[in-house]
Amino acid sequence: MSSVIRNVPRGVKSVAKVQKTGMHQSMRCLSDEAGFRIETDGFGEIKVPANKYWGAQTERSFENFRIGGPRERMPDPVVKAFGVLKKSAAIVNEGYGTLDPQISKVIQEAADEVIQGKLNDHFPLVVFQTGSGTQSNMNANEVISNRAIELLGGTLGSKQVHPNNHVNQAQSSNDSFPTVMHIAAVTEITDHLIPEVANLRDALESKSKDFAHIVKIGRTHLQDATPLTLGQEFSGYVQQLTNGIGRIEHSLINLKFLAQGGTAVGTGLNTRIGFAEKIAEQISKETGVAFKTAPNKFEALAAHDAIVEASGAITTVATSLFKIAQDIRYLGSGPRCGYGELSLPENEPGSSIMPGKINPTQNEAVTQVCAQIIGNNQTIIFAGTQGQFELNVFKPVMISNLLSSIRLLGDVSKSFRIHCVEGIKANEERIADLMNKSLMLVTALNPKIGYDEATKVAKNAHKKGITLKESAMQLGSLTESEFDEWVVPEKMIGPK
Amino acid sequence: MSSVIRNVPRGVKSVAKVQKTGMHQSMRCLSDEAGFRIETDGFGEIKVPANKYWGAQTERSFENFRIGGPRERMPDPVVKAFGVLKKSAAIVNEGYGTLDPQISKVIQEAADEVIQGKLNDHFPLVVFQTGSGTQSNMNANEVISNRAIELLGGTLGSKQVHPNNHVNQAQSSNDSFPTVMHIAAVTEITDHLIPEVANLRDALESKSKDFAHIVKIGRTHLQDATPLTLGQEFSGYVQQLTNGIGRIEHSLINLKFLAQGGTAVGTGLNTRIGFAEKIAEQISKETGVAFKTAPNKFEALAAHDAIVEASGAITTVATSLFKIAQDIRYLGSGPRCGYGELSLPENEPGSSIMPGKINPTQNEAVTQVCAQIIGNNQTIIFAGTQGQFELNVFKPVMISNLLSSIRLLGDVSKSFRIHCVEGIKANEERIADLMNKSLMLVTALNPKIGYDEATKVAKNAHKKGITLKESAMQLGSLTESEFDEWVVPEKMIGPK
Amino acid sequence: MSSVIRNVPRGVKSVAKVQKTGMHQSMRCLSDEAGFRIETDGFGEIKVPANKYWGAQTERSFENFRIGGPRERMPDPVVKAFGVLKKSAAIVNEGYGTLDPQISKVIQEAADEVIQGKLNDHFPLVVFQTGSGTQSNMNANEVISNRAIELLGGTLGSKQVHPNNHVNQAQSSNDSFPTVMHIAAVTEITDHLIPEVANLRDALESKSKDFAHIVKIGRTHLQDATPLTLGQEFSGYVQQLTNGIGRIEHSLINLKFLAQGGTAVGTGLNTRIGFAEKIAEQISKETGVAFKTAPNKFEALAAHDAIVEASGAITTVATSLFKIAQDIRYLGSGPRCGYGELSLPENEPGSSIMPGKINPTQNEAVTQVCAQIIGNNQTIIFAGTQGQFELNVFKPVMISNLLSSIRLLGDVSKSFRIHCVEGIKANEERIADLMNKSLMLVTALNPKIGYDEATKVAKNAHKKGITLKESAMQLGSLTESEFDEWVVPEKMIGPK
Amino acid sequence: MSSVIRNVPRGVKSVAKVQKTGMHQSMRCLSDEAGFRIETDGFGEIKVPANKYWGAQTERSFENFRIGGPRERMPDPVVKAFGVLKKSAAIVNEGYGTLDPQISKVIQEAADEVIQGKLNDHFPLVVFQTGSGTQSNMNANEVISNRAIELLGGTLGSKQVHPNNHVNQAQSSNDSFPTVMHIAAVTEITDHLIPEVANLRDALESKSKDFAHIVKIGRTHLQDATPLTLGQEFSGYVQQLTNGIGRIEHSLINLKFLAQGGTAVGTGLNTRIGFAEKIAEQISKETGVAFKTAPNKFEALAAHDAIVEASGAITTVATSLFKIAQDIRYLGSGPRCGYGELSLPENEPGSSIMPGKINPTQNEAVTQVCAQIIGNNQTIIFAGTQGQFELNVFKPVMISNLLSSIRLLGDVSKSFRIHCVEGIKANEERIADLMNKSLMLVTALNPKIGYDEATKVAKNAHKKGITLKESAMQLGSLTESEFDEWVVPEKMIGPK
Repeated sequence: MSSVIRNVPRGVKSVAKVQKTGMHQSMRCLSDEAGFRIETDGFGEIKVPANKYWGAQTERSFENFRIGGPRERMPDPVVKAFGVLKKSAAIVNEGYGTLDPQISKVIQEAADEVIQGKLNDHFPLVVFQTGSGTQSNMNANEVISNRAIELLGGTLGSKQVHPNNHVNQAQSSNDSFPTVMHIAAVTEITDHLIPEVANLRDALESKSKDFAHIVKIGRTHLQDATPLTLGQEFSGYVQQLTNGIGRIEHSLINLKFLAQGGTAVGTGLNTRIGFAEKIAEQISKETGVAFKTAPNKFEALAAHDAIVEASGAITTVATSLFKIAQDIRYLGSGPRCGYGELSLPENEPGSSIMPGKINPTQNEAVTQVCAQIIGNNQTIIFAGTQGQFELNVFKPVMISNLLSSIRLLGDVSKSFRIHCVEGIKANEERIADLMNKSLMLVTALNPKIGYDEATKVAKNAHKKGITLKESAMQLGSLTESEFDEWVVPEKMIGPK
Repeated sequence: MSSVIRNVPRGVKSVAKVQKTGMHQSMRCLSDEAGFRIETDGFGEIKVPANKYWGAQTERSFENFRIGGPRERMPDPVVKAFGVLKKSAAIVNEGYGTLDPQISKVIQEAADEVIQGKLNDHFPLVVFQTGSGTQSNMNANEVISNRAIELLGGTLGSKQVHPNNHVNQAQSSNDSFPTVMHIAAVTEITDHLIPEVANLRDALESKSKDFAHIVKIGRTHLQDATPLTLGQEFSGYVQQLTNGIGRIEHSLINLKFLAQGGTAVGTGLNTRIGFAEKIAEQISKETGVAFKTAPNKFEALAAHDAIVEASGAITTVATSLFKIAQDIRYLGSGPRCGYGELSLPENEPGSSIMPGKINPTQNEAVTQVCAQIIGNNQTIIFAGTQGQFELNVFKPVMISNLLSSIRLLGDVSKSFRIHCVEGIKANEERIADLMNKSLMLVTALNPKIGYDEATKVAKNAHKKGITLKESAMQLGSLTESEFDEWVVPEKMIGPK
Repeated sequence: MSSVIRNVPRGVKSVAKVQKTGMHQSMRCLSDEAGFRIETDGFGEIKVPANKYWGAQTERSFENFRIGGPRERMPDPVVKAFGVLKKSAAIVNEGYGTLDPQISKVIQEAADEVIQGKLNDHFPLVVFQTGSGTQSNMNANEVISNRAIELLGGTLGSKQVHPNNHVNQAQSSNDSFPTVMHIAAVTEITDHLIPEVANLRDALESKSKDFAHIVKIGRTHLQDATPLTLGQEFSGYVQQLTNGIGRIEHSLINLKFLAQGGTAVGTGLNTRIGFAEKIAEQISKETGVAFKTAPNKFEALAAHDAIVEASGAITTVATSLFKIAQDIRYLGSGPRCGYGELSLPENEPGSSIMPGKINPTQNEAVTQVCAQIIGNNQTIIFAGTQGQFELNVFKPVMISNLLSSIRLLGDVSKSFRIHCVEGIKANEERIADLMNKSLMLVTALNPKIGYDEATKVAKNAHKKGITLKESAMQLGSLTESEFDEWVVPEKMIGPK
Repeated sequence: MSSVIRNVPRGVKSVAKVQKTGMHQSMRCLSDEAGFRIETDGFGEIKVPANKYWGAQTERSFENFRIGGPRERMPDPVVKAFGVLKKSAAIVNEGYGTLDPQISKVIQEAADEVIQGKLNDHFPLVVFQTGSGTQSNMNANEVISNRAIELLGGTLGSKQVHPNNHVNQAQSSNDSFPTVMHIAAVTEITDHLIPEVANLRDALESKSKDFAHIVKIGRTHLQDATPLTLGQEFSGYVQQLTNGIGRIEHSLINLKFLAQGGTAVGTGLNTRIGFAEKIAEQISKETGVAFKTAPNKFEALAAHDAIVEASGAITTVATSLFKIAQDIRYLGSGPRCGYGELSLPENEPGSSIMPGKINPTQNEAVTQVCAQIIGNNQTIIFAGTQGQFELNVFKPVMISNLLSSIRLLGDVSKSFRIHCVEGIKANEERIADLMNKSLMLVTALNPKIGYDEATKVAKNAHKKGITLKESAMQLGSLTESEFDEWVVPEKMIGPK
């Protein structure tokens, strides 16, 4: 029986099982009944909740940075990435013979639990801490250390598996945190963001095909213009997202370079030759993503240009998506006093006071997400400028904002697709009615009667409230049969 | 015994008591064992967790907007403000005789529970929903409706106390949500942000006084300049925050105008004459803050310029705080290879690899918060431009970002004060050593020997690595006694 | 006869008259035929165009900062403000007896020419120079020095009137540049921006009154909502701008504090006691604006929070104006396939390919200006954070962007008013037609038949494409006479 | 002899030669003595300065958009790109047989003059005009039309060479303006930005090699850390710029797709099949850059994601450059009271009050440019979201800001390289002195005595103000010879 058991209520086998309440609720009243144990670091002793694996440095940070509350907790993908890193480091260090195989084994087991999200409640720290993420790295080291000690039947806090000497071996926060930033970003982009944007693109493409036969009025400057098909209009959206996926994918190239192996300042002090390459390789095995060691570790610690670049790519997609969602809600405006060309799915009552009102709420979620991403991007750019000498100390706020953008854009792409795009219907009668009224069909006459004469026809029709044809006949600009032959919307949707 | 009891496990008196787990963890596996009940709205029936008070519209929104997860839940101050609003509306409506006193009474009781935060777990919706916040308004209406029904011993979902006709009486989401935006912002600014910024200002002022006697080298362009006292340097920070508090306070003026009474589009349809004024008065009573009805409700619904204005003010304070925290960390840089003029408190080990390293971690939290606020501000500005006709549909994202800025700036002001500013010490020996080396004391000679001759003295000293005095003597620019009389740092810290 | 005359064509009395070509074109081929003269500074001799008044330091900066070309020249209002400052300084210094009255007199005369814009071509430096604006201060000192020397009949470059010892007496760039930043900003805001925004507000108010009788459909979420008058809709815009003017005016309070008297680091070294107050007073006399000396000069040099604050206020007005211009262009969309409620003035042909097309081009200019201001604001915020110790070295880029925002917002307010707002016409027939079709008039029935029944009426009408009244009759929700009595748009535009 | 000749002084053959004053100065007092001629468009007659080639639509825009003045004139690269486009269109149209060869010839000649910048003064319009850039397109059409007419000996304004039917044949502003946006951006990036960033990178790389032998203290969190070489530190900057060039180059891919051929709404109405491909080919010939026709013209007109993407890439480089310039100025801070590791070139006197002061002014220009670019990027992102249906009407403000970023970043890269980087010197004595004092050399002991014991050594030294070695001896942590063997900075700059 492990000594930790003496600290916890009888019959409880693991700290993890002790907890009764969720992290979020309990952040201010930790481990009440469960009591405390003593942990130590270079600063001395400190009381830590007995039912948590974390150690002294985590506890200090938790107490010293009461900023923002649970909303601002270090994002889960970062925690998971720490699991990947620490496991990989144990394997590589064991390979060098600098880490005892038995200790490596329990570190790997504990790290696997971190990867699986089982120990999320043991990562209480917020984003707004030290700008190197040192305490989150130590949080990972301490939790894995104590859980590994527990697996060995040792005493929590004993450092039998040492958080620095073993779990953090050949690592610094300064290379570890950028490494987990990249692992987390790449994973979330690959697993969540790109698939959802691609699904949305596909749904729009499907609509583009469905709407290929519907000729409608074009609008430029919000004013009636020459016709196009509704399918063509949607094809622009498809192209935007196709390009957008390319943009995001391209940003992965630099995100796949890992800082690990740079240690404190980028030199790789206290690592073995080859460590940087080996750990990138091991992380690739763990994640199934082809990470590589960064070509220059000084850049990788002191700058996070790859994060700024990725945020720029994601923000570009957000600008695309804003346009798409904005168009669709205007095209669906009405039902009787708007454009009314599209009908959007009705998902919920739209008003607490106006009975029967339906609103384009998914589009509103999309556009709000885009606004958020634009702000996140600004935070990232600002923070990206502020590296100092060998370190940029805005790491947590940068990755927090990038992961927010990734998550939100992925989520809203899915929500928008399912609850809006897939259910869009074209109001063909309305569309035809509007198009036939338009004056801009006159453009087809440019090559026939010249721009100046065509202008007269259009202006005369507008002024008198008559049709284009009536106007042309009045002015004698061409014959009726010429008009009927030349002004045909269906012939105006492409070059000749 | 109330009928709701039949829906819940035997012996449980209140839905609120049924819940076993926190909102955050359970958002994806709601009310497992507790079962469901049927709620209805204009869209028909829908299953709702039996242990939650919310109704059909909340449930639809919860399902339709799976965006961002628990981090993105509507902030608590908004929920609390809904409690204030709904209670106030019940009182005013009862006064008009349009709401039954008994129903008003239970609405008020339920609303009080919302104000007290007892029902937070019944507000599951995220920020990225409909842009009017309609579903969050309905969430409040539904929760209060059902809790009020329960207080009356009725059946949940029976609409005995109707969410629209009673709880939302004479209100629309379109005026309610902007009203709670303002209530929440004003309350958080008044109760949290301003006091904490003021405390930080006071702490810096105290340091300014402590350091009044310490003459040090000034730095402009990062280059050695003429001297000032450390107290003077800190007095600049104090002035920045004094101004900053004024800026934030000024932004309260427009935030204290409430949209309530505008209903759907700003006309006040379905309200009684005087409703707008009365409810502002009632909300003032509830909150102790002097709110007023907005002079123009069309503006109050369709634009959120007051939010943009407030964010601008807060961002200005963030720019101030960035400068302050940045200066202090550079002045504390070292311990041996930096400026080293200040010693900052040592709060935690600074490095997982470099033993004994101490970092200015509070300053890093401050500057990261500032970066976040700058991004939040961008989101708010963007969203603020996008009102359309009678409504701006970026309400949730605007208030979410503003409340984030308020919370973070307040929290970090407190953290920075306690864990850094109050413990700052001046390294007087180092400061004196640096100052005495400086060449810019030469400036005192301008009125004596002219700018051009003084330039020669300084340049000669710099070139030869000698002292100013040595240089002046070499060049014969003045006599030794003149030099000693004129070049006295202590006499260079003010006009004559 | 002064030696400079020998360098210029016979009979020409003043350098200013020598120039043949504009500054902008000639920046890269200065003073070809006119030749050069030698100027000196602490760095030694340098050739300067004979037909320019500037001296050695200006010339060095001109050569060292070839960044951005003429578009990026220091804005004229800054140059003018330097004239005000240098004139005021001469007067105050003369009053102290530290400046010879004859020298003071010619400095004042030369400064007056700077104020009048006569010497603009002698200020060639760009924004992207030293961040303290030192070279622009020296540019002013040098030009005034040489022009004053010329007025005395002396030799240019002789320093008979010394740029540092006389023109810059008791000043540093570090307090001078922030002083001219504030003078320029206040002047431009007061003389240009506020009047033009007020004029626009008045024009919108006039329209609001003209349109007071026109009942129209409201739109929330872009969907048909309850009615309001077109006058009410415009009253929201008026309120936005009324508030906006208040916001800008409030930002003047802090802009009216002047840094002058702080000299190099804020201490006021080399000034006399009272200098700071006296010069603020003198500048007030020159400008007719009540400037005051800043309460803390350390803040005034090292931070530019007042600039950030002012930019925030202006940006808030830009968000307002964006909304207004956006609404108006959508309301004017068409002519046949859009909302079509307004007709905007036709100012120019709208298309190079579509004959007769007219576009809301003024609105496009407005919204583009708003986009520019939002970016300018971001630059200012960023730069505002970056003060270092005793100085913020982003002064030129901050004032350049603020003046850009002021100028553009003022100009576009005028342009939009004259070329669009004043000529807006309501299409009353179209407006009435749309309103009468709307389903949201059903909201008037809430207090009569309840939200749920009213929902059924609206949804039935929508589904079947019939009128509300037809739907209500079909469902038997109320009698025809009740409907006719209760559903009256004109009665739905206010509380009862 | 053409009639225009009668309006100009005897013997002058061309309008272009008539002008006496530059565009910038004369924008408000055009063609005084030269008189006016009458031009016409669909709106009727209008007076145009006789000495300008522009026509009626340019004149209307010039009068209707008095916004921002000469600073805001449409950037020259856009004008030049219009020359390229119009020339190419004439060639392609001639090839289709739809444009008379003689007319094509003079259009090409006139367009060549536009390309060469000879007609820049005939392009007076500002950025803040119609959002499609229609009037700038018409400006190009009109100027080329009139110049071509002049070349034919015809009467200006006669439309013998018609601005719409001939010069603009098969084009719309809606595809022309995005085309010139891309041509201008690609050309400026390729010819100016990338070469200058590459030159700067090379200069930094050269320094990195020069400094390869200099071991110095590292700094993380601004606190002393483990050593690295100065060459390694600079290698991080090199890597940032190497990556940055890659980022910018990648953004060219999408910029090289041209919208031309989409005409009014993207369908290509009034073009021949193959026109889009042929004109991209012809533009490639003219520019030497491999442009391609955009795969989807609806996207190319209605969105400018490629511009947003490019701005994101450039902004990422600006974040890099900010860090580099910031580091270098801090490393050069002093001369006696700062870090003092580097000496930067002395380019000009630094202070108008402090004699002999030298400032890192180039770095200040760099960081100000970065601040500007960050704001420009914000404008571009905002504008990029705001496409509406078939058109984004923020085209001029987008390209204006992008070209500003390109120009400024290119210019400042060159200025920084020449006036700063190439002249940087390392103060080796100072660097060695600082490094030898540092406590963080203790990190080398981690693998020998463990993190906890090493911490004690460092803390003891810090507390007592003694050297690491003295501390280690005091504590008996290891032997003197072990210390001397293990703690060797030169061995700490890489893995083992």
